[in-house]
Amino acid sequence: MKIFAYGIRDDEKPSLKDWEAANPEIEVDYTQELLTPETAKLAAGADSAVVYQQLDYTRETLEALAAVGVTNLSLRNVGTDNIDFDAARELKFNISNVPVYSPNAIAEHSMIQLSRLLRRTKPMDEKVARHDLRWAPTIGREMRMQTVGIIGTGHIGRVAINILKGFGAKVIAYDKYPNAELQAEGLYVDSLDELFAQADAISLYVPGVPENQHLINADSIAKMKDGVVLVNVARGNLMDLDAVIDGLNSGKIADFAMDVYENEVGLFNNDWEGKEFPDPKIADLIARDNVLVTPHIAFYTTKAVQEMVHQSFDAAVAFAKGETPAIAVKY
Amino acid sequence: MKIFAYGIRDDEKPSLKDWEAANPEIEVDYTQELLTPETAKLAAGADSAVVYQQLDYTRETLEALAAVGVTNLSLRNVGTDNIDFDAARELKFNISNVPVYSPNAIAEHSMIQLSRLLRRTKPMDEKVARHDLRWAPTIGREMRMQTVGIIGTGHIGRVAINILKGFGAKVIAYDKYPNAELQAEGLYVDSLDELFAQADAISLYVPGVPENQHLINADSIAKMKDGVVLVNVARGNLMDLDAVIDGLNSGKIADFAMDVYENEVGLFNNDWEGKEFPDPKIADLIARDNVLVTPHIAFYTTKAVQEMVHQSFDAAVAFAKGETPAIAVKY
Repeated sequence: MKIFAYGIRDDEKPSLKDWEAANPEIEVDYTQELLTPETAKLAAGADSAVVYQQLDYTRETLEALAAVGVTNLSLRNVGTDNIDFDAARELKFNISNVPVYSPNAIAEHSMIQLSRLLRRTKPMDEKVARHDLRWAPTIGREMRMQTVGIIGTGHIGRVAINILKGFGAKVIAYDKYPNAELQAEGLYVDSLDELFAQADAISLYVPGVPENQHLINADSIAKMKDGVVLVNVARGNLMDLDAVIDGLNSGKIADFAMDVYENEVGLFNNDWEGKEFPDPKIADLIARDNVLVTPHIAFYTTKAVQEMVHQSFDAAVAFAKGETPAIAVKY
Repeated sequence: MKIFAYGIRDDEKPSLKDWEAANPEIEVDYTQELLTPETAKLAAGADSAVVYQQLDYTRETLEALAAVGVTNLSLRNVGTDNIDFDAARELKFNISNVPVYSPNAIAEHSMIQLSRLLRRTKPMDEKVARHDLRWAPTIGREMRMQTVGIIGTGHIGRVAINILKGFGAKVIAYDKYPNAELQAEGLYVDSLDELFAQADAISLYVPGVPENQHLINADSIAKMKDGVVLVNVARGNLMDLDAVIDGLNSGKIADFAMDVYENEVGLFNNDWEGKEFPDPKIADLIARDNVLVTPHIAFYTTKAVQEMVHQSFDAAVAFAKGETPAIAVKY
């Protein structure tokens, strides 16, 4: 059996090597190139292809892959919205993704960024970098003194709650579909408005579905405490970023960490050094002392990458054997 | 009753204001100046003085204070090694300090710095600052995947352990005087050597007493795992910094966070911008991607400062009433 993988990055190679060592009977070949109508032929002779890219899986691309006999496609990531499912259906593609790789990677990042905002590590690091070793006035706040509002209590939100409990913070949570265990603990408030009114800091863990579009907007920000701290590592479209910037300008929002942005495709994971951002908002936010911008890296840990590689290759093997892996995409 | 305070910083004023509001019967006056033989007369007419400085409390200073009738001295910090206790004894000074203000402030800082080292936030922040928004190769590691060795399980070490548990990390600990509860949990290893051998990351919470001098040295580092992560927010003299630098240079130590330094007096809490450090080691460490230097700020939170102000003023009142506060220094 042979598996061909596209877009393999250097940081994936240790995990790939581990997987190959554990599966010596499987032939593995790969390229750093992405899957396109042109590169599809590289997979000729393989039983399954393993992929990860923001680039669209178009009808043309899928046809080119099917033309070399490969109709098993295992994504190493979760997102499938760049797949032409009509074409995939006609061509009888089997598709899998990796819906859960490491909730901890994302939850940890959100809480590390929150703790850094509270502790004002950005201005303190900048002082130290220029050899100003005075502590005042860069005073920190403690995690344990905060009431933190968690919106969304799925896998990732629940890990964030455990981290907050370790710090001794007070946790309040909101979810339309409460978790029984958290409910028994009495962590839920009855409404988002209640959470907005009580929370010193708010972190989001809900999907970017249409009903959550701009959940954080001028109205909801107005309901929050003065000096609230906001963290978004979930989805960019959860926030009206202009409203957040207004809140930062007025002081209503004291600090803000963002790992996602509504218009991040094409912006994040590119090098803009010496070039102008397509969106001037981002340069402004990056320059602020009380804002931490990261380019959608919350997922990006050695453990998460290992899971993405191992789960996708396992699924590719299952497809090749005619089995349906648990992570097959139903479409 | 009147209390006079020296060296009041801007970040202490909100806590001072709160204390005054809660104690309207006490007259409070203060200066930003430190207590010296010259400024001692400012306290004339007060029942107690409240102080906080690295400057020595010399015989001359204490005599000048006694000469204006003030022999109650309440320190807003923990350290008393800059007091001439012989002179204080002769002059019959009552002295208090604040031995415990916020173990969480220090424990949180240590764990935030550890999480940042693992996540490589310093190189990632630097990339974002220069508008390079590519994530690879700056991949993070997760707290939950680490075995963290805690040396010293007093107030602060135990808070650090709780934070680590929240993250889901594996904790191992060593203390010559084990805590019964942690012992029952089975967290202790039998020796420092065992801790060195097993820990992916090591953080220190022991006092800087002579027997702990250079606890972390070339020999102990050699016993650690390759790629170990070290954190010291406790005392500078716990580490032979040259040995740590050797370890960083060889790659034996992957990452290092220091908030304290053996020769920090006169170095930390000063502005060296445009000037040369007395010690070239510090500039070298600050410039490294895998080292986080902070100038003894672990204690520096709004909650800790509030405790330092409120506890010291309460003790000053107690002395003035002829009582002995619980935090009186026995000397």
